[in-house]
Amino acid sequence: MKREGLSSVHADKLFEQVYDYVLDGIRRKDWKEHEKLPSVRALALKLDVHRLTVFKAYQLLKQKGYVYVKDKSGYFVQPGGMLATASLHDPIVSAYVQRSHLSEIHQVQATYQFSKALIDPNLLPNLYFSEYVKKVFDLYPKVLGTYSTTQGDEELREALCRYYTERFRFYLTPQELMVTSGSQEAIDLIARVLVKPRDVVLLERPTYSPAIDVFLRQGANILAVEITQHGYDLEQVEQLMRTHKPRLFYLNPTFHNPTGFTVPLAQRKRLVELAEMYQCLLIEDDPCRDLYFGKEPPLPMFAYDTSGYVIYLRSFSKYVAPGLGIGTIACRPSLMAYLLSAKALSDSGTPLLNQKIFLHYFFSERMQQHLLKLRTALAVRKDIMEEELAATDWEWSSPTGGFNLWIRLPDSTPMEKLLGQCIEQSITFVPGIICDPQRELASWIRLSFSYLNEQQLREGIRRFVSEVRSLTAQAEE
Amino acid sequence: MKREGLSSVHADKLFEQVYDYVLDGIRRKDWKEHEKLPSVRALALKLDVHRLTVFKAYQLLKQKGYVYVKDKSGYFVQPGGMLATASLHDPIVSAYVQRSHLSEIHQVQATYQFSKALIDPNLLPNLYFSEYVKKVFDLYPKVLGTYSTTQGDEELREALCRYYTERFRFYLTPQELMVTSGSQEAIDLIARVLVKPRDVVLLERPTYSPAIDVFLRQGANILAVEITQHGYDLEQVEQLMRTHKPRLFYLNPTFHNPTGFTVPLAQRKRLVELAEMYQCLLIEDDPCRDLYFGKEPPLPMFAYDTSGYVIYLRSFSKYVAPGLGIGTIACRPSLMAYLLSAKALSDSGTPLLNQKIFLHYFFSERMQQHLLKLRTALAVRKDIMEEELAATDWEWSSPTGGFNLWIRLPDSTPMEKLLGQCIEQSITFVPGIICDPQRELASWIRLSFSYLNEQQLREGIRRFVSEVRSLTAQAEE
Repeated sequence: MKREGLSSVHADKLFEQVYDYVLDGIRRKDWKEHEKLPSVRALALKLDVHRLTVFKAYQLLKQKGYVYVKDKSGYFVQPGGMLATASLHDPIVSAYVQRSHLSEIHQVQATYQFSKALIDPNLLPNLYFSEYVKKVFDLYPKVLGTYSTTQGDEELREALCRYYTERFRFYLTPQELMVTSGSQEAIDLIARVLVKPRDVVLLERPTYSPAIDVFLRQGANILAVEITQHGYDLEQVEQLMRTHKPRLFYLNPTFHNPTGFTVPLAQRKRLVELAEMYQCLLIEDDPCRDLYFGKEPPLPMFAYDTSGYVIYLRSFSKYVAPGLGIGTIACRPSLMAYLLSAKALSDSGTPLLNQKIFLHYFFSERMQQHLLKLRTALAVRKDIMEEELAATDWEWSSPTGGFNLWIRLPDSTPMEKLLGQCIEQSITFVPGIICDPQRELASWIRLSFSYLNEQQLREGIRRFVSEVRSLTAQAEE
Repeated sequence: MKREGLSSVHADKLFEQVYDYVLDGIRRKDWKEHEKLPSVRALALKLDVHRLTVFKAYQLLKQKGYVYVKDKSGYFVQPGGMLATASLHDPIVSAYVQRSHLSEIHQVQATYQFSKALIDPNLLPNLYFSEYVKKVFDLYPKVLGTYSTTQGDEELREALCRYYTERFRFYLTPQELMVTSGSQEAIDLIARVLVKPRDVVLLERPTYSPAIDVFLRQGANILAVEITQHGYDLEQVEQLMRTHKPRLFYLNPTFHNPTGFTVPLAQRKRLVELAEMYQCLLIEDDPCRDLYFGKEPPLPMFAYDTSGYVIYLRSFSKYVAPGLGIGTIACRPSLMAYLLSAKALSDSGTPLLNQKIFLHYFFSERMQQHLLKLRTALAVRKDIMEEELAATDWEWSSPTGGFNLWIRLPDSTPMEKLLGQCIEQSITFVPGIICDPQRELASWIRLSFSYLNEQQLREGIRRFVSEVRSLTAQAEE
């Protein structure tokens, strides 16, 4: 009787609570490494639960590598278990272990940086920036003496609302817009306000790697939605929404990172309907919209949302100025109230100086000219990268915007070894596996063509191709 | 038998889990407002626990105002219960409700701002800032095209390490220092990395209000340590550490906010010993150290810590430039690793521009001259405020540094009414109750003398005194 109860959904909740309780104790060092845990009997008595509930919790702890069994005498704390890689997949442990895979790769200094999806600083109008800064000090002499409001500078929010409304038909008021310190802060605020341990979150597969890290840290139960050149399988999405009632779907439908894919208009409209139907928020991250090589992409989903189920994130770091750290969140007022409270506790507002410089630069004519040049420069660099890769049998889809190629290397490529040898050769790239919520896409990589100049790009890719070839040749021998 | 079991410490854990489970359901709208919850019997069956456990959880939910009982027919969801003020004291609910009491007061625009513990922007060397900015663009032409590292600009960290070591004997390496976007981010990162729901956290009483909000949001169980002119009652502190094994003690021992008190040297040394003995981290927040009116305060506790139990926070917003948003965290490497991972997920590093401007301004001679003038200006403003208050029978201790007077008004003062009427008269202040983790100090207020010029200060205080007098006279009639 009891045993059947335990395998039911509701009893699961109870053994998971015991599991959490023990993990928590290990984390707090109530039980230290190699120390014996209480016996099943003793813990059952202590927690006033059935012994099978404790047994099931201990079995799961063993399976996940947090405890080991010795001489049938009991369960012991596994050293290092709390920080093992495996633990990142555990919703409870990951809530304590904060890890940013992409930032670890970015800490590597290299000549041939294919890991950074960032504009080459030489492509930015550096000489003119100091003019704009001078102007800002003339206009607002006390700008450094003043905190911004939590929501962001009112003048900037008004200007951006007009811009969003004119360009994308958003019909937004300044109360519905928040200025953040880049999109990383925006994703983090959203995760903190909306996601609790075991909440279901949908992510694209592959997706922006730090988003996986943020939602894992919140303890989310992550489900993957495949993204292809044609967008999503909407039947799969609806099925997931119906069955798992996800809290939100974080997506990047325009020049998607890392694949470069763009979700077609019809799918965008349908997704907004699904979001409303299943009360699943869509977190639409849109940092590359202006960086198209051909025609403009379809309107953001936010433009089709009439019931407040889309939150629109826009970072300007990618092409206006990474060093300013300016992004925005657009959403309807009920959600904004929660985000504002979270922002008030996480910093004292994005610095006013940065907001004012951004305001005056972003809406200048120079910025528009810069953008035109930037699109051309990026398209040229993409072409160079593809030219250099043409002789390989690697697979990729040519992107129509953004910064990256998403490439499938031969299955025989020993990826970890490749990364290690590349770093020795001063070459970096992003292993696709860190962009995969399921950590399976072992043959894929992301190469960014945006950060290096044309000559470095050619040289770097040649070296990279020859590294891969020599390693796969060895592997196939 | 069972009943006795339930009132024991261990059974408490179980009924708290049921309590959390139900609250969680209410938050997710599994049960909507005025909807009936499952019967005690049904929920006990579902969760595989004893009925008395469920009963006890329901009673607590009722007591906290989340559910109500109707016609003896059962328990129903109380509308608005999740967002009621009472819920802020609940470790589980507060983890979802993010609220910043101080930032709510700061949103009020007023002529007589006694609520902002900030430098009057006219006291800052605004005219010279643009010179430093120009210099930064000359030195680092690509500063806006570049992200900072997560830990902060290396040149700045090296300079600050030398400064901390020379001035305060810290013997710090750049690896032990992180640049943050002000102290709010620092406190938030620390809370996120170190505190989980029901962890015990010690806070001073009174304390910096946003710290209460941040630790409450983390779900901490907050215990108060009284701070007086003579520092803490160290026997009380030791007793709390021994009995409750707190995770950390957040303190502000130098020109304490809001009281202005400074903890004496002998206590600082003893606290470091206690911290090590009871494995309780000391989070030493030190934003006002340089703003003394008489002699320099004792060295930070960090200088006496040899085993890594002190984390030292320093914000420079208070007197260098609020608009730059620069602060630092100093701690030993094992903790730094966790903070760095958390920072990498919460933003993309503090903007490089702001760090470079800070670097060149902070270590300039002009800054040192500015600081001398600032100390004098603040002392003069403090004297003016005290002069204007001399005729009242209100109580306060004259501070020897910082920005604030911490004042006890007559007990008969109707505080909420006073705040309302003051806001109508364009006067703001901080009600002491939001600085009290126990929300009891109803007669106390914080008045900042730093933000207004001398004339506004006199006028504002006269108006404020007359408001209080007319209200207390009414109350006593």
